[in-house]
Amino acid sequence: MATLCRPSVSVPEHVITMEETLELARERHAGHPQLSLALRLIENTGVRTRRIVQPIEETLKHPGFEERNNIYEAEAKARVPAVIARALDDAEVLPTDIDVIIYVSCTGFMMPSLTAWLINEMGFNSTTRQIPIAQLGCAAGGAAINRAHDFCTAYPEANALIVACEFCSLCYQPTDLGVGSLLCNGLFGDGIAAAVVRGQGGTGVRLERNGSYLIPKTEEWIMYDVKATGFHFLLDKRVPATMEPLAPALKDLADTHGWDASDLDFYVVHAGGPRILDDLSTFLQVDPHAFRFSRATLTEYGNIASAVVLDALRRFFDDGGATDRARGLLAGFGPGITAEMTLGRWQTADDMQGVG
Amino acid sequence: MATLCRPSVSVPEHVITMEETLELARERHAGHPQLSLALRLIENTGVRTRRIVQPIEETLKHPGFEERNNIYEAEAKARVPAVIARALDDAEVLPTDIDVIIYVSCTGFMMPSLTAWLINEMGFNSTTRQIPIAQLGCAAGGAAINRAHDFCTAYPEANALIVACEFCSLCYQPTDLGVGSLLCNGLFGDGIAAAVVRGQGGTGVRLERNGSYLIPKTEEWIMYDVKATGFHFLLDKRVPATMEPLAPALKDLADTHGWDASDLDFYVVHAGGPRILDDLSTFLQVDPHAFRFSRATLTEYGNIASAVVLDALRRFFDDGGATDRARGLLAGFGPGITAEMTLGRWQTADDMQGVG
Repeated sequence: MATLCRPSVSVPEHVITMEETLELARERHAGHPQLSLALRLIENTGVRTRRIVQPIEETLKHPGFEERNNIYEAEAKARVPAVIARALDDAEVLPTDIDVIIYVSCTGFMMPSLTAWLINEMGFNSTTRQIPIAQLGCAAGGAAINRAHDFCTAYPEANALIVACEFCSLCYQPTDLGVGSLLCNGLFGDGIAAAVVRGQGGTGVRLERNGSYLIPKTEEWIMYDVKATGFHFLLDKRVPATMEPLAPALKDLADTHGWDASDLDFYVVHAGGPRILDDLSTFLQVDPHAFRFSRATLTEYGNIASAVVLDALRRFFDDGGATDRARGLLAGFGPGITAEMTLGRWQTADDMQGVG
Repeated sequence: MATLCRPSVSVPEHVITMEETLELARERHAGHPQLSLALRLIENTGVRTRRIVQPIEETLKHPGFEERNNIYEAEAKARVPAVIARALDDAEVLPTDIDVIIYVSCTGFMMPSLTAWLINEMGFNSTTRQIPIAQLGCAAGGAAINRAHDFCTAYPEANALIVACEFCSLCYQPTDLGVGSLLCNGLFGDGIAAAVVRGQGGTGVRLERNGSYLIPKTEEWIMYDVKATGFHFLLDKRVPATMEPLAPALKDLADTHGWDASDLDFYVVHAGGPRILDDLSTFLQVDPHAFRFSRATLTEYGNIASAVVLDALRRFFDDGGATDRARGLLAGFGPGITAEMTLGRWQTADDMQGVG
């Protein structure tokens, strides 16, 4: 049985507060006919602070797609190894114990993926499988957990390393002036997360079942417009309401497992925005307090895309986790609109009972 | 045991011959100091014809990254479904029998991936997993086979659909004037391939073992430079010689399986260029005739990136495949430099003996 161990997380040193974000929006979009709506939407996110890889003055410039992507590569190489090293330490494994690296990131593009550089630089085996995923956006954190689970199901002795590296600030597009874009300028942040899924042993979430769900005919609701200036994020105003059609998919997965999605012991989900958490609470009939880890990520770091679910999970670990065999749900949500869902039980290393 | 069924392949209607390619190179690069070298390199590829999604006059223009990517999306939507439908038919499965779609493509970028559109348009279940991979380049055909194998190993009742969609002509960069770029202008072609990996039943290659190998410190030998004008392919002159360090990895994988890589019944590998096939023959001590399917793909279609290995496999099927339980090697090679390797046995549907 695969166990998702404690994620390691790092956020950059440059801080921008909500007050600074609002002030910038007022300055830069003074004549915008929907400025007051945009300001209200930003305030409603509840994002108090975000951490970004460059000072805000640099972030607001657009030096071109090539330069942006070069910054992505340089910052990833400078910051990712330490996060991975910590995740390996926490899981008590060595680089040579890892069989597959699943690297998810939608905010920069490299071919080969950073996985090749990581294998060379960090002493992973040359036989390590590489699964780089760039096109699942915020759902990719959940997808990485699930593909790691699948891999360890196929090879029960294997260990998987998952890495989410998101520098959303490098996708800021100063010429995008729709209300959705102005909102996103106040919502997304930067962050890196890594975690090991151990095929044997480990403390954390023992993964029991995973599933995916695509809400029919919503593929244009969250998307990138790919242009000479890079990736332009498009957010349909219907997106915040998508937990209503997604909640039944979460319930179905739990039902299939003989569990009740409304009655689990912990919930760790992607916090795309506050409405997602409020609606999940409503449609799953779960106390809002259950989503406190996700909400804390959103409040302190903003939406850090695929890294949200891993950071929220890290907070759950740091809060002490749960009692042995406590049942929980993890989920990432993103473009498609896709949900990547996971069911598992809290597991301490010395409990060798297996699952019931 | 997972069985890789007959791939379906489609190449576009616009043909460009080697003679036309050479003539274009002579016209467009008349004063280039290394023109004669470039012409000789193109001639040496042995690529007689290539098939491209637009007429050559359109291909030679660069309408910008955004327009290029729009063409990619439109052409993929127009062409991919029929290839998938044929692959499903050949494997005797329905869209609703598919549990995961692995979509590999490095010549256009969409978020969400085409997988979301395919699920909506072609009647796949909303619960179908999506694994889009854009960053493994030519190795991704092998990676798709291997990840499908892993998935069916984890879930023995599952079926995986793999799709490789490569429009290399949409990455033509008229301002790239290095000898490597001029060579690539005569090497790469367009093509789409799809295949089903059935967890149970099916005729084709029963997948027994897979592995990956990264040649240390070669991550800059095959890479994309990401610019406002799109993806710029960089090919180091050391790449054609990489079969020497890769052959031992192929041998090691076979050894681990109790097989001799020099003494298998069939070989289906990525044909990046003619040297790769010649050197594999030398370093594996295998008759060059063994690589005839890969060579035919290279000769008739050029290097169609991740789709090469699937097209070569299609030719093997159409040639009648092999005798039951004949042992073979599949492999994709690409950026990293990464090899994705597979060992399997030919299997007809009515042989229910399993593997020995």
